[in-house]
Amino acid sequence: MKVLIVGLGLMGGAYAYRLSNKGYTVYGSDLDIDAIDYALEKKFITNGSVNPEDFIKEADLIVLAIYPQAILSFVEKYKDLFHEGQVITDICGVKSSFVSEAYKLSKPATYCSHHPMAGREKVGIRYSTECVFGGANFLITPTEGVEDFAIDTLKHIGVDLGFSNISVMDIQKHNRMIGFTSQLTHAIAVSLVNSDHDDDTKYYIGDSYRDLTRIAMINDSLWSELFLENRSYLLEHIASFEFELNLLKMALYREDKEALCKLFKSSTKIRKEMEK
Amino acid sequence: MKVLIVGLGLMGGAYAYRLSNKGYTVYGSDLDIDAIDYALEKKFITNGSVNPEDFIKEADLIVLAIYPQAILSFVEKYKDLFHEGQVITDICGVKSSFVSEAYKLSKPATYCSHHPMAGREKVGIRYSTECVFGGANFLITPTEGVEDFAIDTLKHIGVDLGFSNISVMDIQKHNRMIGFTSQLTHAIAVSLVNSDHDDDTKYYIGDSYRDLTRIAMINDSLWSELFLENRSYLLEHIASFEFELNLLKMALYREDKEALCKLFKSSTKIRKEMEK
Repeated sequence: MKVLIVGLGLMGGAYAYRLSNKGYTVYGSDLDIDAIDYALEKKFITNGSVNPEDFIKEADLIVLAIYPQAILSFVEKYKDLFHEGQVITDICGVKSSFVSEAYKLSKPATYCSHHPMAGREKVGIRYSTECVFGGANFLITPTEGVEDFAIDTLKHIGVDLGFSNISVMDIQKHNRMIGFTSQLTHAIAVSLVNSDHDDDTKYYIGDSYRDLTRIAMINDSLWSELFLENRSYLLEHIASFEFELNLLKMALYREDKEALCKLFKSSTKIRKEMEK
Repeated sequence: MKVLIVGLGLMGGAYAYRLSNKGYTVYGSDLDIDAIDYALEKKFITNGSVNPEDFIKEADLIVLAIYPQAILSFVEKYKDLFHEGQVITDICGVKSSFVSEAYKLSKPATYCSHHPMAGREKVGIRYSTECVFGGANFLITPTEGVEDFAIDTLKHIGVDLGFSNISVMDIQKHNRMIGFTSQLTHAIAVSLVNSDHDDDTKYYIGDSYRDLTRIAMINDSLWSELFLENRSYLLEHIASFEFELNLLKMALYREDKEALCKLFKSSTKIRKEMEK
């Protein structure tokens, strides 16, 4: 199978690297010629160009590993080169209204979105080989009308990339869940780090702070788009998080050890379930 | 040097295991005979007893690896067996008023508290060998009057346990900083997990949620004590965290991409500083 990766950043690079290793013919396109040169030199791709149209016709699968707001304009610009039997996908972390629009525009090709739940708090193709997909979730989010062959193509890609769990789900549910597990966690980590007003905090950190705040190192242009695309779900989740934090605060004010223990027992139980 | 470890739980066990490996003579005491048997069988200790008085006189260093609220009653109960030149310490995560009281009661021995900033979200001696101290901070928190030899003893222990950074600091500053880096992070993780109201969240989690919530699996009796011992600092830190989260929420309400980017840039900068 021939795959065109558009956008050779951290994730696009990781896709190219892993799919090439699995024997796929991988083409790469990026606005940055350095990223293409790097991908060629490291044999992540067999051919590359700043012009994606050089490969679009030939590709069985086009992976858009670009910013959410750039997706529709890409599809709009190149749709005349798309053809039947071709699958077009994106790796975007939120699946808002752009997906059904992209589906319509991409005809006769089949647009089917997916979300690889892995990454690194780094930017750029030079960190691509550090992206580990083992143990991670690969979520396929088709709109109505997406044919089975497109979903199957993405399932195969998910397997070959090394993801552990591959599932197909409804877009609305995806967005609601991701607002919680991904965007809320980033919002919390960012706010925690921003509330650090001491110069020598680093001498007082343990594993917990280190783990919890790693994701506060964040690609600001990408994540501000993701947050805004999914803002209504995210605001809902922030509200229920604040409600729980408030219960804990009240227990502290009242010096209520039993209430604290109850909260800790609950979180332990819920989180342990996830390890199964 | 002869060391008595009182409390063969996760951390007490890890101390015993590592110090034995370094050639120390280690004695162990615990109310639970199973923990003693395990420690003997694994050669974490050379001798053990449910009665700490069997070893107190002989020990050069006594490490109290027990719950914060049990420390003063231990010192009170056994103080007549303490002698000059002997160092007594605890590994407690907050250093509240009990420390100066313990210092007074322990005379002619020298009581000097410390805080090993490492652990695992597990309970019990069977997980002790999983405690990794490399890369971690070891904080020594003497009260006024503690002699240098006691501080030096703890520095040596810190080195032999494998801690990377060993520092001596004021108790008040310790409590304020720990309220931020340790207790606030646990409060946040617990509240995040408790605000999860969906049965199949686990199919939607990525590295970020996994990392951030691991510490929500928490020893409730221990941590409720730690939270209450340090509640005024913790409540202050919760307030400044809420302030920052509110800035983010406001940016979302206003759909203000620039404000979001500013918050993300700030957290990235602060957190990157820590990696240095």
